[in-house]
Amino acid sequence: MKRIKLTVAYDGTNYCGWQMQSNGITVQTVLNSALSEFLQEKIYTVGASRTDTGVHARGNVAVFDTRAQIPGNKIAFALNQRLPEDIRILGSQEVSPEFHPRFTSTIKTYEYKILNRTFSDPIRRKDSMFWYGKLNLKAMKKAAGYLMGTHDFKSFAAIKGTEGSTVRTIYATRLWKEEDMIHFQIQGNGFLYHMVRIITGTLLKIGQGSWPSEQICQILEARDRSRAGATARACGLTLLKIRYPEWEPDLRNRQNDKFKSISLNV
Amino acid sequence: MKRIKLTVAYDGTNYCGWQMQSNGITVQTVLNSALSEFLQEKIYTVGASRTDTGVHARGNVAVFDTRAQIPGNKIAFALNQRLPEDIRILGSQEVSPEFHPRFTSTIKTYEYKILNRTFSDPIRRKDSMFWYGKLNLKAMKKAAGYLMGTHDFKSFAAIKGTEGSTVRTIYATRLWKEEDMIHFQIQGNGFLYHMVRIITGTLLKIGQGSWPSEQICQILEARDRSRAGATARACGLTLLKIRYPEWEPDLRNRQNDKFKSISLNV
Repeated sequence: MKRIKLTVAYDGTNYCGWQMQSNGITVQTVLNSALSEFLQEKIYTVGASRTDTGVHARGNVAVFDTRAQIPGNKIAFALNQRLPEDIRILGSQEVSPEFHPRFTSTIKTYEYKILNRTFSDPIRRKDSMFWYGKLNLKAMKKAAGYLMGTHDFKSFAAIKGTEGSTVRTIYATRLWKEEDMIHFQIQGNGFLYHMVRIITGTLLKIGQGSWPSEQICQILEARDRSRAGATARACGLTLLKIRYPEWEPDLRNRQNDKFKSISLNV
Repeated sequence: MKRIKLTVAYDGTNYCGWQMQSNGITVQTVLNSALSEFLQEKIYTVGASRTDTGVHARGNVAVFDTRAQIPGNKIAFALNQRLPEDIRILGSQEVSPEFHPRFTSTIKTYEYKILNRTFSDPIRRKDSMFWYGKLNLKAMKKAAGYLMGTHDFKSFAAIKGTEGSTVRTIYATRLWKEEDMIHFQIQGNGFLYHMVRIITGTLLKIGQGSWPSEQICQILEARDRSRAGATARACGLTLLKIRYPEWEPDLRNRQNDKFKSISLNV
């Protein structure tokens, strides 16, 4: 038995998010079927990030156990032949059985893109959100900066679907405009349900001048979802990368007894 | 009666090209219907570039005549409400009746994008062509440079659909890589059927090392389609911009009698 880690990219437009569910096709469903057919055994993947309907990924992580003999790094090539073109495996590798994509410290990076011009662009409509009005980028950047550090992000979490601690650490935020596209990147140890989209909606309020940059601090303190901005559209959001600091750069050489094997069936 | 010029952007993925035809939905068909419904009269647009199935545009130009009273610059906003989100009017203006989008000297700029990395990217699969192998950009750039100037481009035109003179002038070519995306831009006074895609296919042959850069000169001289490379996929191609040097910057003020009104029904 060995454990395989996949780096997964997808155009989320046509999927009901990552997580398997009964009422719609998800990325995980398609991936499980392709893997099961390819490896000739029942495969169940565990994803690092349960991205929402319409959200994209350039580097989500999925892990599964298999009895197959194929070397871990060969799986990506073979699996891509069996996947639709809106899902691509960008890398595969064997990891030690202690590795679990969610019970391990992570650094996740998300990007939200806002196309800011007079008219929307048909070619870029599926991976960005269109915004007609003028935006004060300096004010948005300043507000984003206040989010850095460890805070209770309860105000920035959807009420439905949020359980347990709402404390998260944001390591970095970046916001810049390149031609007519505003890029907002945020890096942290984890994100609550809808968190990046609610933060983006709040930054848009600030960018429009409805609220001053400093209001984001009061919103944080309030721990009240109704104080923050609207949830920005899913299509503008992409999960860029997930890193596992404890496990890099030598994932494969850390099969020591410091870690216990963690079952994926949790 | 007045003449209106539209700047049109579209994601060509779901259209059988620009030009109206009986066996598939085209951008022109959709535009004509939306305009006719909006202006309450039968409208027939004439496009500057009859882009092919799957080819995109950020700045195609369409012109039509109307009796409507609405100011030319207001049409874009109103029309976008009636168009599907994969077609967008980026601007509208009244032009003099001598203006015809094809019987006027133009400077057209096309861009071909090649995603050059190990695995394809689901998010960028619809507006670029994926290429796995290594490419020598310096050799491709050098070859593209040989195309500048006035030449007979018969070798770079599809045999079907090419009529009349095959002489065109290329004003500029640019080729660069930004992260994993190769951008090839070409600017000229006009392009033959499939010309940019065949040039791209030829540059790929050179980039792979199958042919030296200089071979592009022999291909030009041969005036023989079979000597050039394959026609690169439509999805990588975007019509970026069309300029009308005789008419800019003061299109509206040139309604003098130097020009005769040109009927759009040709």
